Amino acid sequence: MTETAVSTATDADLMQTQFVTEMDRQMRAIDPYGEFDRLSTAELLEPFILTKEKRQAIPLVGDPDEVLVARMRAFYNAISVMIESECGLMAVPLLHLTHEGFGRVIITVGKLVVLDRSLRDVHRFGFPSLSKMKDEADKILSVALELIGEYSDVAGL
Amino acid sequence: MTETAVSTATDADLMQTQFVTEMDRQMRAIDPYGEFDRLSTAELLEPFILTKEKRQAIPLVGDPDEVLVARMRAFYNAISVMIESECGLMAVPLLHLTHEGFGRVIITVGKLVVLDRSLRDVHRFGFPSLSKMKDEADKILSVALELIGEYSDVAGL
Repeated sequence: MTETAVSTATDADLMQTQFVTEMDRQMRAIDPYGEFDRLSTAELLEPFILTKEKRQAIPLVGDPDEVLVARMRAFYNAISVMIESECGLMAVPLLHLTHEGFGRVIITVGKLVVLDRSLRDVHRFGFPSLSKMKDEADKILSVALELIGEYSDVAGL
Repeated sequence: MTETAVSTATDADLMQTQFVTEMDRQMRAIDPYGEFDRLSTAELLEPFILTKEKRQAIPLVGDPDEVLVARMRAFYNAISVMIESECGLMAVPLLHLTHEGFGRVIITVGKLVVLDRSLRDVHRFGFPSLSKMKDEADKILSVALELIGEYSDVAGL
């Protein structure tokens, strides 16, 4: 992989954040044959980055492949782990996709739904940059933690 | 279909209940080619009934087929419709299964999880009788309505 290809993901501070560390862990967890062992974190997360040019190159309509769905699960798993480590309660993600790439993802804590999102165009799942990806995760995290704080009785069920 | 085959599902009162009516509607909704048009409600719901003998005839380990998964969705859809008609808030089921027949089903109302259940041995999904099936649905319904009553603010989110 060339230096240019991973240039979007080389900010040293960013690589130290809990989110990126967790994403790294999640991606290595779904790699039973050690194919990712030689990859750095930046290289491992490179497929998540869809620059404008790359996105334009993907057809508007398409079926998501298994590898992409696994990446998507890794993203929501990482967010769940972060929610869990912040509030001490188990956060469970549940993702359902049709073959056409439409679906829904939710994360529950106790009996509380802390994330509920419709998914579409899953075959184009990606973020403009790693820092935008982290921003997105942080946004979901803060909304979730706010909900848990407000309805802690339901989250504790 | 012989009279014996549907004998477990012929109680007239039972056939008039909201649950059975809704199950009938759900099953016909997933029948785009009108294959079920000639079937009575009892015949339509017959595949849901697994007598002890029938259950024993199914291998312990097996993969659920699409038709079975569709039946399972119909069951949880019907329960969602009943929750909705009782409390006036939208109830949304979400079912995720692995290919091996393990999974999780949840029903959410607003930000409240009113049903959260692990699924296993999905290829053996069925009930001893239609009345037992209705009992199961009623049980889920009453737990859900109790939760909605208790945490109406979260359900209304």
